Amino acid sequence: MSVVVWWLVTVVMVTVHSASAGVVELNWEVEYKLRWPDCKEGIVIAINGEFPGPTIDATAGDTVIIHVTNKLSTEGVVIHWHGIRQNGTPWADGAAGVTQCPINPGETFTYNFIVDKAGTHFYHGHYGMQRSAGLYGMMIVRSPKETLQYDGEFNLLLSDWWHQGSHAQELYLSSRPMRWIGEPQSLLINGRGQFNCSLAAYFNEGGLKECKFKDNDDCAPTILRVEPLKVYRLRIASTTALASLNLAVEADCAHVQGHQLEVVEADGNYVAPFTVNDIDIYSGETYSVLLRTHNPTPSRKYWISVGVRGRKPNTTQALTVLHYADAPEYDHLPYPPPVTPRWDDYDRSKTFSKKIFAAKGYPPPPEKSDEQLFLLNTQNLMDKYTKWAINNVSLSVPATPYIGTIRYGLKTVNYQKPPGKKIVEDYDITKPPVNPNTTKGNGIYNFQLGRVVDVILQNSNVLNGRGSEIHPWHLHGHDFWVLGYGEGKFRLGVDEKTYNLNNPPLRNTVALYPYGWTALRFVTDNPGVWFFHCHIEPHLHMGMGVVFAEGVDQIAKMDIPNAVLGCGLTREFLMNRGRH
Amino acid sequence: MSVVVWWLVTVVMVTVHSASAGVVELNWEVEYKLRWPDCKEGIVIAINGEFPGPTIDATAGDTVIIHVTNKLSTEGVVIHWHGIRQNGTPWADGAAGVTQCPINPGETFTYNFIVDKAGTHFYHGHYGMQRSAGLYGMMIVRSPKETLQYDGEFNLLLSDWWHQGSHAQELYLSSRPMRWIGEPQSLLINGRGQFNCSLAAYFNEGGLKECKFKDNDDCAPTILRVEPLKVYRLRIASTTALASLNLAVEADCAHVQGHQLEVVEADGNYVAPFTVNDIDIYSGETYSVLLRTHNPTPSRKYWISVGVRGRKPNTTQALTVLHYADAPEYDHLPYPPPVTPRWDDYDRSKTFSKKIFAAKGYPPPPEKSDEQLFLLNTQNLMDKYTKWAINNVSLSVPATPYIGTIRYGLKTVNYQKPPGKKIVEDYDITKPPVNPNTTKGNGIYNFQLGRVVDVILQNSNVLNGRGSEIHPWHLHGHDFWVLGYGEGKFRLGVDEKTYNLNNPPLRNTVALYPYGWTALRFVTDNPGVWFFHCHIEPHLHMGMGVVFAEGVDQIAKMDIPNAVLGCGLTREFLMNRGRH
Repeated sequence: MSVVVWWLVTVVMVTVHSASAGVVELNWEVEYKLRWPDCKEGIVIAINGEFPGPTIDATAGDTVIIHVTNKLSTEGVVIHWHGIRQNGTPWADGAAGVTQCPINPGETFTYNFIVDKAGTHFYHGHYGMQRSAGLYGMMIVRSPKETLQYDGEFNLLLSDWWHQGSHAQELYLSSRPMRWIGEPQSLLINGRGQFNCSLAAYFNEGGLKECKFKDNDDCAPTILRVEPLKVYRLRIASTTALASLNLAVEADCAHVQGHQLEVVEADGNYVAPFTVNDIDIYSGETYSVLLRTHNPTPSRKYWISVGVRGRKPNTTQALTVLHYADAPEYDHLPYPPPVTPRWDDYDRSKTFSKKIFAAKGYPPPPEKSDEQLFLLNTQNLMDKYTKWAINNVSLSVPATPYIGTIRYGLKTVNYQKPPGKKIVEDYDITKPPVNPNTTKGNGIYNFQLGRVVDVILQNSNVLNGRGSEIHPWHLHGHDFWVLGYGEGKFRLGVDEKTYNLNNPPLRNTVALYPYGWTALRFVTDNPGVWFFHCHIEPHLHMGMGVVFAEGVDQIAKMDIPNAVLGCGLTREFLMNRGRH
Repeated sequence: MSVVVWWLVTVVMVTVHSASAGVVELNWEVEYKLRWPDCKEGIVIAINGEFPGPTIDATAGDTVIIHVTNKLSTEGVVIHWHGIRQNGTPWADGAAGVTQCPINPGETFTYNFIVDKAGTHFYHGHYGMQRSAGLYGMMIVRSPKETLQYDGEFNLLLSDWWHQGSHAQELYLSSRPMRWIGEPQSLLINGRGQFNCSLAAYFNEGGLKECKFKDNDDCAPTILRVEPLKVYRLRIASTTALASLNLAVEADCAHVQGHQLEVVEADGNYVAPFTVNDIDIYSGETYSVLLRTHNPTPSRKYWISVGVRGRKPNTTQALTVLHYADAPEYDHLPYPPPVTPRWDDYDRSKTFSKKIFAAKGYPPPPEKSDEQLFLLNTQNLMDKYTKWAINNVSLSVPATPYIGTIRYGLKTVNYQKPPGKKIVEDYDITKPPVNPNTTKGNGIYNFQLGRVVDVILQNSNVLNGRGSEIHPWHLHGHDFWVLGYGEGKFRLGVDEKTYNLNNPPLRNTVALYPYGWTALRFVTDNPGVWFFHCHIEPHLHMGMGVVFAEGVDQIAKMDIPNAVLGCGLTREFLMNRGRH
């Protein structure tokens, strides 16, 4: 079977062609607001005054039209629709410098795209570190033929929060020497956390005092109010800037009849269901889990905990409450909240990742790839600036979006070469870099359409001392198959044999574990320019990403709206074109 | 004598046509930096790493070409050349939304203009509150035929500094209810101040401890090192966001042979010299003063103090030192620093203002005006937002620069009516507004060329309680004659008779005193669009300004560079023009 046919099968499988497709049209104003996200005042980016932004609720096949008005004083803004593939509308992907120019203050830009695929998605800022400033929200795309059965649902959007503002954070990270922003002050669930107080203080949790708030306080938790003997879908997304997370419910044990989580969806794709008491979730990932309620007597409340994984935490667990109907409103919970797994129990994390397989009915990936792309992840030092680099090139996103430069074939733009495709043979990933230097680059990888591409993400030791960090990699415009994870350096011609080509899950985000590798496969079936980057905001800010161009010939023929190209060299070109 | 002839005479008088005009060409990178402006770390906008930005040193007649590269992460930027009239280059005035679009991050814009007139000028950001963030520097334009005689010179750029960042300040001021930013934490001289410590601690000044720093510290003072029996020109500019200031030297008194300041220049215009021990200076103003050194025996150091006027201060005086050659480097000064005048001694301030007259040789203003424009200054409450308004309209600067809308006669733009020209007859300026409401507006005043315009700025009581604030008004693109100051409400047909039409000083900035009026006259001799606004940054941010368009017919024929119009509706128009 040829590659092209595989690709078509895949697209047909996941695309909904609804005769009754609707339109979801929204007007959004983006502006800074004073809020109390963790019971301490801070500055957030709000949408129509809401933080997090409004939840988009659409049905697969719908056209989503969002008129975004930038009400920031001096800053541009864009919004990326995380998980939406933007087939045919690559200019609506909302990645500044890649697919569009930032929307200027005082101006309105209209995003217009089809949500062709059901799933739990979210959206967020993709310019500077505006995601860290709170520019995010949920995006639910419902299936007209939903196969999951449940009685109710809750959205849980997870994020992390610093008391230092995002502008200062950007500056710290870009300073020489780099000043690290540290661990977040709080974890937020739906934009709500508790700093310096605890919902569970009466268990002497962290020695904190009890939180006092009214129900309408910014930092009062989102309570999950449930009925007995029902099934609830929890739609969970992580848009953290830094933290890898674990969400845990009270499990069955000696003193308590607890709950379980049946994982059924990941990044908008059904997975073969499996049951756990807690899930790991990395920034950029989404999950749906089904939670079956029992019938507690007397009726009571249960904890849900969210804690940090993969970095030595300095942040209290976020808490919220599963509240059975008729449970006393103000009574304390009888037991302390569950404690999420130890931060450095990586084996447990990998075990969870490896439990995820595609649900039945998804075709397997193409058997063979046409190209193999090795991306070595390193922390570097460039002219005393700390950078993250791929194959020794730290990405510097240009002011003119790639999509515009390609569309108009601007000869004035000379991109550097892309970072290279081959495995760096002599690089010892177990030690700090021998030559920590790197270069800044803006080169992109060009792919023809219909190619099957394998990407092997290779982790390595950090700049100083012994250590290796988790990097959740997110690909725009695509889902990819996660073919496997491995330890140490990828062995060319050997490790390929361990790939799961039978039922690998489709994702748009995948974790790269310390000192290990992660292999993924995707088909270049979406003409456009697509960002592929570590979803940790500071890492991206320090250059940890690459850019894929697919079908350059097709991009050159696209009817790209002028409104996305109104900056840099495309603006100059298009404005001067009219001068006679 | 007709008005037009007067105007020509004026222009000839102050314009230098130098056969040997040179070019000053500079490359600037604008970016945030961590600095210690007042011995406490803060975030400043630096130019080429310098805060304040580099001093421009040019000669009248020179062409100044500055390539400004915006290295801010997500914010636009512009630079206004305060005091330069931009004859023939109104698009280079650097007022966002008025004369140009902000320069996008990653882009370079070239300012290219002639500095036709000698004087002590400065430059600063004119977008959002970027001036508050420290985007400013000195601009010295030398006369090829300088009539002043002096042996050396020093630049003193005065500013005020908050520990709260400018983004937060903007948000506070725009919040509902408005949150006032308070008085500055420090006053800075050439970007250097001392918070929480004092150079004069050994006199128990403010109960502060003594400052300890090395000479190259960000907050070590600019020392004025002088020789005996010489004449020094101090070029003093105030770019404060809020504070009105007084600069005082140690005067002659029982224990000390002090110094005097001979005021010789104001806003780039020579004034009839007069001698004082201290000068008032409002934001937007510049002065040159001549300081004659004597021959102290033994050689010693003298204080220079800068303190707050016109607002109840909560900020320590800024200090620096006049250091005679051979004075011991590390010895303490023998006497405490001079204390600047009491903040609310307005009579003293007015006395100083009224000492300023044009130097001999300047022609008087036109005898009569063609138009009279009354601008009532009020503090208002609009939908619970605090605003400042002119004739009950609070200015909202549009995203598309006025100059571009006019150039291309864009019919899609419907400006509101300007705020009106007439005196508000029944308004009681001595009481809080009876109807505190206002409207937001973007209307502009249109003037034909060659008109003589009188503007009467009328102050009033603030929103709550009894009080009236100082507003230093700055006009772009022009000097104006200050015809007079008065108390209370301007009496139409009466107060005009008190105007000084003989030797009024030419300025570009003038103070409006509490509960009073200030009258000025200018000639509409400069085709372009010119901002006229209160130079207090928070007041401007809250709408305290108007816009003058001069010679709309000429603007429509101007060859305005596309680069200044690359935003909003002009971008759309110019980009679409080429689509065929």
